[in-house]
Amino acid sequence: MESGRYRVGVLGATGAVGQHLVSRLADHPWFTLAEVVASERSAGRSYGEAVRWRLDVPMPVGAGSLMVKDLQSDLECDLLLSALDAGAAAAEEGFARAGFPVVSNSSRHRMDVDVPLIIPEVNPGHLRAISSQRARRGLTRGLIVTNPNCSTVGLAMALKPLHDAFGIAAVQVVTMQAISGAGLDGVSGFAIQDNVIPHIGGEEEKLEAETVKILGGFGDGGFSPADVAISAQCNRVAVLDGHTESISVRLSTPATAEEVRTALSAFPGEVADLGLPSSPHGPILVRDEPDRPQPRLDRYQGGGMTVVVGRLRPCPVMDWKFTALVHNMIRGAAGAALLNAELLVAQGLL
Amino acid sequence: MESGRYRVGVLGATGAVGQHLVSRLADHPWFTLAEVVASERSAGRSYGEAVRWRLDVPMPVGAGSLMVKDLQSDLECDLLLSALDAGAAAAEEGFARAGFPVVSNSSRHRMDVDVPLIIPEVNPGHLRAISSQRARRGLTRGLIVTNPNCSTVGLAMALKPLHDAFGIAAVQVVTMQAISGAGLDGVSGFAIQDNVIPHIGGEEEKLEAETVKILGGFGDGGFSPADVAISAQCNRVAVLDGHTESISVRLSTPATAEEVRTALSAFPGEVADLGLPSSPHGPILVRDEPDRPQPRLDRYQGGGMTVVVGRLRPCPVMDWKFTALVHNMIRGAAGAALLNAELLVAQGLL
Amino acid sequence: MESGRYRVGVLGATGAVGQHLVSRLADHPWFTLAEVVASERSAGRSYGEAVRWRLDVPMPVGAGSLMVKDLQSDLECDLLLSALDAGAAAAEEGFARAGFPVVSNSSRHRMDVDVPLIIPEVNPGHLRAISSQRARRGLTRGLIVTNPNCSTVGLAMALKPLHDAFGIAAVQVVTMQAISGAGLDGVSGFAIQDNVIPHIGGEEEKLEAETVKILGGFGDGGFSPADVAISAQCNRVAVLDGHTESISVRLSTPATAEEVRTALSAFPGEVADLGLPSSPHGPILVRDEPDRPQPRLDRYQGGGMTVVVGRLRPCPVMDWKFTALVHNMIRGAAGAALLNAELLVAQGLL
Amino acid sequence: MESGRYRVGVLGATGAVGQHLVSRLADHPWFTLAEVVASERSAGRSYGEAVRWRLDVPMPVGAGSLMVKDLQSDLECDLLLSALDAGAAAAEEGFARAGFPVVSNSSRHRMDVDVPLIIPEVNPGHLRAISSQRARRGLTRGLIVTNPNCSTVGLAMALKPLHDAFGIAAVQVVTMQAISGAGLDGVSGFAIQDNVIPHIGGEEEKLEAETVKILGGFGDGGFSPADVAISAQCNRVAVLDGHTESISVRLSTPATAEEVRTALSAFPGEVADLGLPSSPHGPILVRDEPDRPQPRLDRYQGGGMTVVVGRLRPCPVMDWKFTALVHNMIRGAAGAALLNAELLVAQGLL
Repeated sequence: MESGRYRVGVLGATGAVGQHLVSRLADHPWFTLAEVVASERSAGRSYGEAVRWRLDVPMPVGAGSLMVKDLQSDLECDLLLSALDAGAAAAEEGFARAGFPVVSNSSRHRMDVDVPLIIPEVNPGHLRAISSQRARRGLTRGLIVTNPNCSTVGLAMALKPLHDAFGIAAVQVVTMQAISGAGLDGVSGFAIQDNVIPHIGGEEEKLEAETVKILGGFGDGGFSPADVAISAQCNRVAVLDGHTESISVRLSTPATAEEVRTALSAFPGEVADLGLPSSPHGPILVRDEPDRPQPRLDRYQGGGMTVVVGRLRPCPVMDWKFTALVHNMIRGAAGAALLNAELLVAQGLL
Repeated sequence: MESGRYRVGVLGATGAVGQHLVSRLADHPWFTLAEVVASERSAGRSYGEAVRWRLDVPMPVGAGSLMVKDLQSDLECDLLLSALDAGAAAAEEGFARAGFPVVSNSSRHRMDVDVPLIIPEVNPGHLRAISSQRARRGLTRGLIVTNPNCSTVGLAMALKPLHDAFGIAAVQVVTMQAISGAGLDGVSGFAIQDNVIPHIGGEEEKLEAETVKILGGFGDGGFSPADVAISAQCNRVAVLDGHTESISVRLSTPATAEEVRTALSAFPGEVADLGLPSSPHGPILVRDEPDRPQPRLDRYQGGGMTVVVGRLRPCPVMDWKFTALVHNMIRGAAGAALLNAELLVAQGLL
Repeated sequence: MESGRYRVGVLGATGAVGQHLVSRLADHPWFTLAEVVASERSAGRSYGEAVRWRLDVPMPVGAGSLMVKDLQSDLECDLLLSALDAGAAAAEEGFARAGFPVVSNSSRHRMDVDVPLIIPEVNPGHLRAISSQRARRGLTRGLIVTNPNCSTVGLAMALKPLHDAFGIAAVQVVTMQAISGAGLDGVSGFAIQDNVIPHIGGEEEKLEAETVKILGGFGDGGFSPADVAISAQCNRVAVLDGHTESISVRLSTPATAEEVRTALSAFPGEVADLGLPSSPHGPILVRDEPDRPQPRLDRYQGGGMTVVVGRLRPCPVMDWKFTALVHNMIRGAAGAALLNAELLVAQGLL
Repeated sequence: MESGRYRVGVLGATGAVGQHLVSRLADHPWFTLAEVVASERSAGRSYGEAVRWRLDVPMPVGAGSLMVKDLQSDLECDLLLSALDAGAAAAEEGFARAGFPVVSNSSRHRMDVDVPLIIPEVNPGHLRAISSQRARRGLTRGLIVTNPNCSTVGLAMALKPLHDAFGIAAVQVVTMQAISGAGLDGVSGFAIQDNVIPHIGGEEEKLEAETVKILGGFGDGGFSPADVAISAQCNRVAVLDGHTESISVRLSTPATAEEVRTALSAFPGEVADLGLPSSPHGPILVRDEPDRPQPRLDRYQGGGMTVVVGRLRPCPVMDWKFTALVHNMIRGAAGAALLNAELLVAQGLL
């Protein structure tokens, strides 16, 4: 750390999530973008040359002239934010061993028995797993912390206050997910226009498994998943950013509409007093209009970090149903990793 | 009836469903388009002048030169197919009283205690209600028969074989519905592009109520809804035609995947032996690819009259989940009404 | 004017352009939103209740509680920004007569012989017409100033530096225009998805006529249109915001690619020294990538006020061809009107 | 040839154009699909397994069980239709040398000095080049005939009757091209949604060069390009199928609107008397509505083989301007190749 700021390296900096990370680091109060790491194909060129910048905000001044390094390079930084895909994320363990704290958006280590899968507002206490992780993997300064899959973040955040207040017994969730979640070239235009694709490889399994890990506990025996039955059906729709989720829940104890609404809208998040720069004032916004949330109108709520919930109403089969919206690239990926890094700073783990 | 063919009048002929009816009547083996009826604004002009034709097949030769009449006009035909909206459909009862069999796509009379809500392959026996309808309403030759809401057709057809074979206790359904279901100007381009709208007025109520009427029985006491709990969440997506439905079901008696799959794919429909021209060879097609059905690729299966089911897999919360697709304008509207008219002919009710 | 700020009333405040005006006034350094005016249907309700807010940024705090007035009401403000459609804009003259400076986005008065049609960076000198306007119409403090049609702004700004440097003899322009230009409900989703509509009523005529008025002069004899032949073909495409224009020009004097590029990129605008808050640092940005500008990636350049030009290359039929992009709702409408109002302030005309 | 039918092999059978060829061959009166050829990755599997079928009509019965061969295999057929990309199309010359007539959609040989670039309705006489081609390349039974680029077909067909009647001096064309023209995965959904991409690699050059070859002559000295100046600007838009082109033309001799309209609408095509199965009754349809042609509504005119022209009006810079629409996958690719093969049969060149 130099002059009170942390130097951050971004792994997978040229991809869709990497670009969001580079963009969000530009005026971050605690972090400075120091290294951009990508595949060998990009290494040795400037970031401005190597990247096909696809955000609708300009590339930050300064980022374009950084030299891209590959995964084998020596890195000069205090912290790594990883947007590597699951395959390349094999490199994360080496970086942790080399002493780097790795805050990863990759799915590779999320379900490892010693890796915390964190949403700061939901389960910051899972960071206690780091000491056993270090012991188990022989790490000293290094560590690996992950954030969930994009669709998981929206579900887990919406469920957390209900689980705390009433207990959740079962959940049905059907997602309508944005194209950007598949990466810049992940879905062809000919495939998705005028269409719905009712399948996203591995997504339903992630959504079901990650959510119960996040809502569960951590103790001497490690992580104990929450006892919640979850059934997910994941669809791809022709939306650029923002995952919409139609959710039904069965509660363990009865609650009125007003109680459910209040639990959601008054949810402060577990880290409200930490002043994390990327944590929005309200982690959940409840809208009462009959036709909200909508991804195009609501995805930038709280700078893209607020989960927007609406259409709360009784479910004839379970107890309550509602719609949740999460900006998959921000709260569901780049912003999620950045917020986890901020939490590590705030808890003195860097 | 002239020379063995029925002369058909189309009510609401200039709208989206009306255009599909006019198109499908062009080469129908039993029916001839004889009258086109629309609002006073269109009346007195030729159909070719009055309609903004928006199908991607040309307007049938002959239709364009028919004179448009309004709802107050005398009509020369044997049968009326109604694509009127719920308000204008108040006129249907008058036509029935004037002796016309009215086969309606409108929601207005669907839930009336004496009006059959028919999908021929599912509940043709409900036509027995016509005699009590005539008695109750003082009709002689006239009658009113309705087909369900577009999203209901897909759900009810997919549930029917499972309900017959195993009994269905509960259903969760989340729809992703096409724009055309709202009519030619029903959804603005600025509202729906890059977006999902998680609300369609009255749709969830229709889907829940109509499905149990259709799956239920008809006896001396009238219609008895099926004892199935249904919870619907309806979303509008940027698809032109074809409603996609993510469905979970709880069965009354256990069934294996193979048993469920066979029940669906082998479903002959209740009218397989009647030779109705619009009934597809297989009312339900089961696809085994991991990413089907998709609206753009599968909506024209069976000429748009087959419901396509895929992604059958266990549900961790209920028993089985799957995706169903229905062409909302054909099987869900124009084709549905036409098939009901064919059923009336086959059963000698005209 | 109170305490150094101008109180602004927005006419047509609930429409698409009106919403952009309300949004942009929220943190304007010179202006304060004081009045919101709309149709009688909206009048008497709060703006928050009357408007269907359709921007992806939240409605400004404060705007929602303003009471909507109708066009017959007394207004308390120093200046009117009009987003009325051409019909309702008949009211503008009455407001001018009542003493209000009216800065209008409406097409109604743009081609009037005594009304300046202004793009501040292009033809601020046309404001001299105001004195003859006041004389002619018997206005004292009131006046009417207009900004061009959305597609005109992009063309006129791109042509201006070339006309100044080399003279332009002829122009071919083909536009691909965004949905938002037609208003919130102007284009149905069923009409525009998977489609191009090769016609926008009156647009080609406006684009041809307005451009020569703007590029022309103003003198004792009034406005003298530029002697430039312009041929426009206007298409609607499935883009939310941002008009793309494929342009070919024939110059009066030869120029090299480098000279053309420099003329465009170095264009300071006529008002560079006035410090107008809404005028971007560079009115025109030239991009050299082979595939830019693109509406989704480039429309927010300069806060939506910069015209982005790219693909400069020789034209085998005329001299040079290139692509220009303008954010139709900002530089082409709301931002255009606001910038004109700023120009009036800077030139002491308020 | 067996029993009066030609056995056809399709090169590149798994791609987008290949799928259209396979589909159109299913019920062709003269041709039978005999061989499907694709990359080594697909070879050895059944076509049904190897292809990701992406048409909205089912794969023809029979095609699915054909074994896919690679480009090195021995083929049992009378004729090859090639949908290979430009690189793989290097194999076409070897097939011609091995005695196969090759009718290619590839760009590779289109501009070769001895290869006819044919639209049967426009320049069938260019087939006379085959004798010199055979002499030059040492071919006996083999030959190579090509069809134009998808955007060229629409332009060249619309220009042909005007060039014949009045002479064309110059043309400005701006295209709005469909996604399918880039192949199944050629344009990412994230890139094209809510966007226009003002660049298609090599397209403008093809459109300019191919059109003058097609409109030109063939004599002792080989092909002589037409003396027409053409300037093309090519854009990709969010349309699935159908290229829209905004065209302006300068004529060599003056013509009235009615003369231009008649020349277009009465154009019989050069092969009207040959009874080619894929040639539509009218090669060009002129529509008089103010807002047509539109790709979604008009692309299937004439089974996708008719070019639809509309919006004919004077051009203030050149003489006349209009909009043309061509189905890029049918008239612009698969149907174009098939029609060329039919022409070869009709002219006894097989």
